Amino acid sequence: MKPTLTPFEYHGDFLEVLDQRSLPNDVKYIVCRSASDVASAITSMAVRGAPAIAIAAAYGMALSARRSSDMKAAASLLLNSRPTAVHLKKVIDRMMVLPREAMEAEARKIHREDLDINIAIGRHGTAVLPADCHVYHHCNTGALATGGWGTALGIVRSMAEIKKLSHVWVGETRPYLQGARLTAWEMMVEKIPYTLVSDNMAAKLMSDGKVDAVLVGCDRVARNGDTANKIGTLSLAVLAHHYRVPFYVAMPLSALDEECATGEGIPIEERPAIEMLGYGFTKWAHPKTPVYNPGFDVTPAALITGWVTEQGLWRPQP
Amino acid sequence: MKPTLTPFEYHGDFLEVLDQRSLPNDVKYIVCRSASDVASAITSMAVRGAPAIAIAAAYGMALSARRSSDMKAAASLLLNSRPTAVHLKKVIDRMMVLPREAMEAEARKIHREDLDINIAIGRHGTAVLPADCHVYHHCNTGALATGGWGTALGIVRSMAEIKKLSHVWVGETRPYLQGARLTAWEMMVEKIPYTLVSDNMAAKLMSDGKVDAVLVGCDRVARNGDTANKIGTLSLAVLAHHYRVPFYVAMPLSALDEECATGEGIPIEERPAIEMLGYGFTKWAHPKTPVYNPGFDVTPAALITGWVTEQGLWRPQP
Repeated sequence: MKPTLTPFEYHGDFLEVLDQRSLPNDVKYIVCRSASDVASAITSMAVRGAPAIAIAAAYGMALSARRSSDMKAAASLLLNSRPTAVHLKKVIDRMMVLPREAMEAEARKIHREDLDINIAIGRHGTAVLPADCHVYHHCNTGALATGGWGTALGIVRSMAEIKKLSHVWVGETRPYLQGARLTAWEMMVEKIPYTLVSDNMAAKLMSDGKVDAVLVGCDRVARNGDTANKIGTLSLAVLAHHYRVPFYVAMPLSALDEECATGEGIPIEERPAIEMLGYGFTKWAHPKTPVYNPGFDVTPAALITGWVTEQGLWRPQP
Repeated sequence: MKPTLTPFEYHGDFLEVLDQRSLPNDVKYIVCRSASDVASAITSMAVRGAPAIAIAAAYGMALSARRSSDMKAAASLLLNSRPTAVHLKKVIDRMMVLPREAMEAEARKIHREDLDINIAIGRHGTAVLPADCHVYHHCNTGALATGGWGTALGIVRSMAEIKKLSHVWVGETRPYLQGARLTAWEMMVEKIPYTLVSDNMAAKLMSDGKVDAVLVGCDRVARNGDTANKIGTLSLAVLAHHYRVPFYVAMPLSALDEECATGEGIPIEERPAIEMLGYGFTKWAHPKTPVYNPGFDVTPAALITGWVTEQGLWRPQP
């Protein structure tokens, strides 16, 4: 169970962040020396994934604490870096009640806890999924999106370890291509059998009986179970419902927003148009193309088979 | 009703093909002097769209007829250039019963007929769609995919002409990006209000009540109404069914395969892996990534609200 990939490493006076924007072509690192640097790394998607950005934010707070910065300003910068995931807010709240000198140890603890949570989710996930399972996975929820193991992809890893996994369909996840760039790369590094597909091939795969379960992560879950996650999750949930394929959400309990009764209360981030017009310096659409680019959607609880948490299956409040 | 874009122009001793692979960045042309040249233009997707490749193939036959080539070999090359669309086969059959000297006139006639068919589909389409309509459109079925007007996008054009259209959601259509590259460009040229989205945003749009109808084209329709079309069509049909959004197929009657009882008889082309790994010279996935790239899927008749043909609504045979 040794994690082989990690989205960042904390070195006391700086956080070294693996720049996921250039993966898998280039393995580059960004040095963050303050909460402001970390907030920029989050906004620019150098680090992404709800659990990973929460841990990075905790380290950002620790860095600012060392520098005797204004902690309220640091917290506010980090809180506003991405609005949809709730882990981030919970971590900032947890840090803000501590004295400065306790923040570094707390950030390291949050990181360790996340890894433990992931491994527990993996263990519980293996219990609910069928043997010889063909999984369809969306976005990236692996080592790169977390403290180093993964939530939905942590379940995939755990299933591969106990030889319960046949194969993973890796949905490319437009527009940011987290599946094609990050999940495919993780599967290659881990030697887990996988095949890359476009998001709009999922229906054909399910219709052809090639998917035994859909596994996704989550950015925020309302009390009633409505689940915000990467754009395209809702589409997969409707398809899975139609084709009677089990649809599981890997959910660290920190993704639960107790203050949110239903999915309607979850803010949905809109991302820049440029993500839709091309990739890197290459553009395939006209630069003046009008674009709608919501980063997330909300899947109603009724379309979800189960939420796998570190404590086993979670049940929404009716 | 003047078409402003055309995928090719016939000049007697050559067919000038607009190279759609480099659109909208570059407007380049390919000169085809034989059936073999035309077959290459079809296989490489320089010209694509079921009606357009059928017309191009007719011109290819005419070019080979001028050169006293082996007509059976010419027909075979063209027939094998893309397997899923049935228009192509029908056009080749129609040409092969003619003497060489009649082929050029027949190819021009097939081209003119396609334009008339498109305009009739557009007229019938406006009758079935609601006023102030927000349409979701997949792939490219416009002037570039046909003789110069469009099938599903021909209905969009016709609706815009009579001010019945509010707005078009242009699905980018991975992996080949026909929506982002071609449909968005056509809408821009035609000054029709549109917004580009990723394929996996369609569920959110429907869930948010922002889609009044889905409009797609087709490559082959079985007698029972099962419809092969660009990969991702099945996903949109399942979503539209779930959200009770009308789902219409624009269908030239030449897309009907009378020899095919159900969708199971329709051959589905698999496209090269490279289309999934990047765009042009830019790659975002590892070159050794295993890929599945079916070019089409089959939507069962039960998920389709109606088939709009040049003779009005078509009914499948029970």
